[in-house]
Amino acid sequence: MEIDLIVIGPASVKLGSRLAAESSLEAVAVEHKTFPDGESYIRINGDVSGKRVLAVQSTYPPQDRHLMQLYLIIDALKDLGAERVYAAVPYLAYARQDGRFRPGEAVSVNTVIKLLEALRVDGFITFNIHKQASMEAFHIPALNLSAMPAIGAYVKELDAWRPLVAAPDEGAVSLAREAAEALNAEYTWFEKRRDRLTGRVETSYRKLDVKGRDVLIVDDIVSTGSTIANVAQMVKAQGARRVLVGCVHALLAENALERMKAAGVDLLLGTDTVEGPVSQVSVASLLLEGLRRIV
Amino acid sequence: MEIDLIVIGPASVKLGSRLAAESSLEAVAVEHKTFPDGESYIRINGDVSGKRVLAVQSTYPPQDRHLMQLYLIIDALKDLGAERVYAAVPYLAYARQDGRFRPGEAVSVNTVIKLLEALRVDGFITFNIHKQASMEAFHIPALNLSAMPAIGAYVKELDAWRPLVAAPDEGAVSLAREAAEALNAEYTWFEKRRDRLTGRVETSYRKLDVKGRDVLIVDDIVSTGSTIANVAQMVKAQGARRVLVGCVHALLAENALERMKAAGVDLLLGTDTVEGPVSQVSVASLLLEGLRRIV
Repeated sequence: MEIDLIVIGPASVKLGSRLAAESSLEAVAVEHKTFPDGESYIRINGDVSGKRVLAVQSTYPPQDRHLMQLYLIIDALKDLGAERVYAAVPYLAYARQDGRFRPGEAVSVNTVIKLLEALRVDGFITFNIHKQASMEAFHIPALNLSAMPAIGAYVKELDAWRPLVAAPDEGAVSLAREAAEALNAEYTWFEKRRDRLTGRVETSYRKLDVKGRDVLIVDDIVSTGSTIANVAQMVKAQGARRVLVGCVHALLAENALERMKAAGVDLLLGTDTVEGPVSQVSVASLLLEGLRRIV
Repeated sequence: MEIDLIVIGPASVKLGSRLAAESSLEAVAVEHKTFPDGESYIRINGDVSGKRVLAVQSTYPPQDRHLMQLYLIIDALKDLGAERVYAAVPYLAYARQDGRFRPGEAVSVNTVIKLLEALRVDGFITFNIHKQASMEAFHIPALNLSAMPAIGAYVKELDAWRPLVAAPDEGAVSLAREAAEALNAEYTWFEKRRDRLTGRVETSYRKLDVKGRDVLIVDDIVSTGSTIANVAQMVKAQGARRVLVGCVHALLAENALERMKAAGVDLLLGTDTVEGPVSQVSVASLLLEGLRRIV
């Protein structure tokens, strides 16, 4: 690996440590604090001059704060003479505003990418960006990986019973397929249909039966958890044995955990792209593997 | 004035409106909201194509949020075809980390300036930046103005009695001089001396007596207000008639207002570089005047 040093940002301490452990590369944690007025202080506590550095810093909420820390880290590394700076931003904030849906809107994901490139970052890795097409804004080597294989492999170890992977909507089918492959299982997805008379949204599943089986519902982001809760409730009602949820970015706004638990979710698995209460699954191996393709 | 349109950012609604009123230029307020996950949404609700735009957005706390909004506004304006985009950032965040005081530190003010320039902003105006030397990081026309003349002029209207302008420390002497000129008054400053035996810090004032006079204490930033409170208490104890405080950027962290009131401050004047409870003094005229020098 053409990397000399891992620099661990304040938002990715867990993932950074796992990357260091798995790669046996030297690592330093970024020294950081918050000034009384709310500004972030960043200090790279180690010699980076002439080194090829992998900086790891996610940008989950509070996004603006984590983004600013990321910018400060990259700029400091470059300024301190690092030869190469690769940024691993496992969750990329502002990726959902990826187009101008109404005239005059800021296309936020492009702004974020522009700012990263302005700081002369040499390569970029993220996981499950909202839309793959957003990656086209990069002019540097940049990679969007999927964490689903890691989630599938994790569930495999749990000895799921006749597992079935389910996507909560058609947009997430490819995620279900990826997890199913790693788990060596079948997959399906839910369709939302609006009843023309009542206007009610009906969610239906297809192809496979859930009775007595362990169902793994997968998604890229779980925010309020209401989509997952709806699907989980239905699956449980139809006789599923256990309902597992595997999501890449567990942002968990509001009472997401409680909402999903109440809906019958037996286990929620998140990854360390977001550091929080459910970051059990690590994307470290996938990240190191991907890194070889851009370094 | 070679400006066609003022674009008013969410952090500078008061100042933006005053700029529009004083200049008679067309103005649009930026449409903005916060998504449930905490990200900012920005929309320029007006035609900016081919126009020369002045974007006004301050970056007082929460700094990272206001900075991100500023970046989104500038990038959207450029993307929407604005011919020129001038940024008025009346309070520039992160200006206090203006050097590498310990090895490895991020020089944050340079990063902020770098990001602004990366978005191809054509000119920049701020007020009372922490250190004038930080402005050297700019490669575009950039101006650091002082709001003190506006504060001095405002106090003049209050019919102060034998006014004396006082800087709380030697670093703020030039601010006191500027306010004193506008007020046509005398000025002085306080010195901090450490007693060699007791270690106690003694603050002393010099040159002029305060007895029976209205004293205007000036500073660039009031954060917790403790420096001002110390000085105000002393001045009051020595017989000042009224203690006025004039500060450019009233960030007012913690219980700053209560602390200063308890120390005998009769009136706190802030400017609209920061929107808050004490933004009485407007820098609009000074800003429009300065703008002519860089447009």
